Amino acid sequence: MWAAIEPVGRDAGSGGYRRYAWTACDLQLREWFAQECRVRGLDLTTDRMGNQWAWWGDPDAAVAAGDPGVVIGSHLDSVPDGGAFDGPLGVVSSLAAVDALRAEGFRPTRPIGVVNFVDEEGARFGVACAGSRVITGVLDADRARGLTDADGVTMAEAMRRAGRDPAALGPDTEALRRIGAFIELHVEQGRGLVDLGQPVAVATDIWPHGRWRLDFPGTANHAGTTRLEDRHDAMLGYAETVLTARSAAARHGCVATMGKVTVRPGGVNAIPSHVTGWLDARGPVESAVRATVDDIARVAAGHGATLTEESWTPTTAFDAALGDRLSKLLGEHVPRLGTGAGHDAGILATAGIPTAMLFVRNPTGVSHSPEEFAERDDCHAGVAALARAVRELAG
Amino acid sequence: MWAAIEPVGRDAGSGGYRRYAWTACDLQLREWFAQECRVRGLDLTTDRMGNQWAWWGDPDAAVAAGDPGVVIGSHLDSVPDGGAFDGPLGVVSSLAAVDALRAEGFRPTRPIGVVNFVDEEGARFGVACAGSRVITGVLDADRARGLTDADGVTMAEAMRRAGRDPAALGPDTEALRRIGAFIELHVEQGRGLVDLGQPVAVATDIWPHGRWRLDFPGTANHAGTTRLEDRHDAMLGYAETVLTARSAAARHGCVATMGKVTVRPGGVNAIPSHVTGWLDARGPVESAVRATVDDIARVAAGHGATLTEESWTPTTAFDAALGDRLSKLLGEHVPRLGTGAGHDAGILATAGIPTAMLFVRNPTGVSHSPEEFAERDDCHAGVAALARAVRELAG
Repeated sequence: MWAAIEPVGRDAGSGGYRRYAWTACDLQLREWFAQECRVRGLDLTTDRMGNQWAWWGDPDAAVAAGDPGVVIGSHLDSVPDGGAFDGPLGVVSSLAAVDALRAEGFRPTRPIGVVNFVDEEGARFGVACAGSRVITGVLDADRARGLTDADGVTMAEAMRRAGRDPAALGPDTEALRRIGAFIELHVEQGRGLVDLGQPVAVATDIWPHGRWRLDFPGTANHAGTTRLEDRHDAMLGYAETVLTARSAAARHGCVATMGKVTVRPGGVNAIPSHVTGWLDARGPVESAVRATVDDIARVAAGHGATLTEESWTPTTAFDAALGDRLSKLLGEHVPRLGTGAGHDAGILATAGIPTAMLFVRNPTGVSHSPEEFAERDDCHAGVAALARAVRELAG
Repeated sequence: MWAAIEPVGRDAGSGGYRRYAWTACDLQLREWFAQECRVRGLDLTTDRMGNQWAWWGDPDAAVAAGDPGVVIGSHLDSVPDGGAFDGPLGVVSSLAAVDALRAEGFRPTRPIGVVNFVDEEGARFGVACAGSRVITGVLDADRARGLTDADGVTMAEAMRRAGRDPAALGPDTEALRRIGAFIELHVEQGRGLVDLGQPVAVATDIWPHGRWRLDFPGTANHAGTTRLEDRHDAMLGYAETVLTARSAAARHGCVATMGKVTVRPGGVNAIPSHVTGWLDARGPVESAVRATVDDIARVAAGHGATLTEESWTPTTAFDAALGDRLSKLLGEHVPRLGTGAGHDAGILATAGIPTAMLFVRNPTGVSHSPEEFAERDDCHAGVAALARAVRELAG
């Protein structure tokens, strides 16, 4: 399976992946997923958003019986120049877990589903986890349809071009009630398992995290003829705020990143009249994240900047009982780790679905980059853990 | 004249002008210029680059007689969201000076030319003074043809679409030898005349100035899961360098600006793997500008950044004899000022043509912005000074 998808959407220059929602290579990956489900005799359905669900057993009969199925899976899209593992490792491991269970003659008492969520990274339309947010109603259908990519193409138009009906977008209770439990396996995106010397972990929670926009005012003027004392250069406040973001995050035990910036007018010989910077801040404790952002906002305000909260997600706790059950099953040596990354699993957990995550060791500790990696043995350990979990939950 | 061109290329949102070379509004302004020359009976020619020259009298007869003409003029294009005066004030004042001389019955003994230089700001293709650089051979014709705009359109293609033949581009000695002297009138782009309480100044020189690219390396990684101590964030070095540019310029009596920046991958939730910042530095003394850039480069190098000099122009002295003659003519109360801005006049001066500039007071001191301004009385003082200069040189 890995060999089949490895070349899809890989950029020859950067070596990274550019698998964006509803583009040609996304459609190629969806077709690959459908074909892998077909050869396994799984029943493929798509929900109102276009997320793909492949079932071993009858999910609706299980709903009627009051004992809905066990779903595993992840996503196949990527960030710009992302790595090979973030998303695809979970999808491929889920299919491999099904294979492993079948090879040992396992007969499920509950249906087992494998899901491929669409547009998890939000690389094209700017909203992460769009696939799970729309079906849970967290992301309004009209807002989703109106999101635009860098070329001004709306999500509605992109879906239409991909042969889907954007009018169908909306909360999909039918798809959601089929999920008795959801387990997402994911490559770890930090060095937790490397430092602990373990191949697999069970997640505890997703850190509280948010995104803020900082607008710095200035006055456009000529770079050659305007004395320093007559300038109001928006870039200076931005620069000081970037440095403050790092020091404030360190002080409060959080992380803070300013990875996107736009400048007006943006000419080499023009003093910036406006700089917009975006702040991403996360941490294990909500009050610490808030304190970090407050410190940053204070310095920015000293330069006349305004701060706008674009998103805020409180701590997302995964299902404690399900997590404890997995820990007991996999052994007490298996670490329990929190994570600073958002996932579809977090959206489902917030929607009240019993949800867990498994992390697989990443020797580089690097993610969202071509350096992201997982050793073959660790991938196999992930598949084994996932298969054991499904055997327990659906046996 | 002012009322006719005022609406052309003005953006309703910003209130600034977007008059870029070879676009529809540039062509409209060229047609306006041609028409103004026609109604005055001036003979319009274009050179190999497409700069427009309108002659009162026979410029080639004057060349043959060893006493070539007196040229006045400027340009009609703008920076993004630029002001109304930078360029057009010089063109309109030149035509008004011709009108004033004719109204008093002046009979020139040398031909008088009015020029509209194309693409002075370089807003579309990135090279300032392209019109004068190509005809003087400072900008290679092949390089000019291959320059691209933000949409990937080459200058050659843009000229072709505008009905011009890009194959003609190159040094134009015929056009240049017709210029016995050149005087460019320009709105002042700083507060020199405001502080001195004078409406008009004679230029001494253009400050040495240059443009440098700074490339900061980093490692792309996930903004939520990568510990601060594991990060190599290219934005941090950029931010410290921005602040250093300001302090180093202040220390050395120069100006330094970082008005353009690009970030890879550029996602809100991605640690920057590469930041490219551009530095514009200028000052009255070459060694001080060099010292400023050295200080900036040292701090950037501490973050692993490389510095590339994209352009460097030493001090451009205008013709001392011509400047003295104008000072004597206009009165010793008229200030002599240097400027940090580049101009077509600087390109012609470097090409060995006796060149001078006149500056008109700008009450805001702001340029390259909608706030750029000149009072009507000061504009009239500029026209009068220009007419007096032409009367002296061509009488």
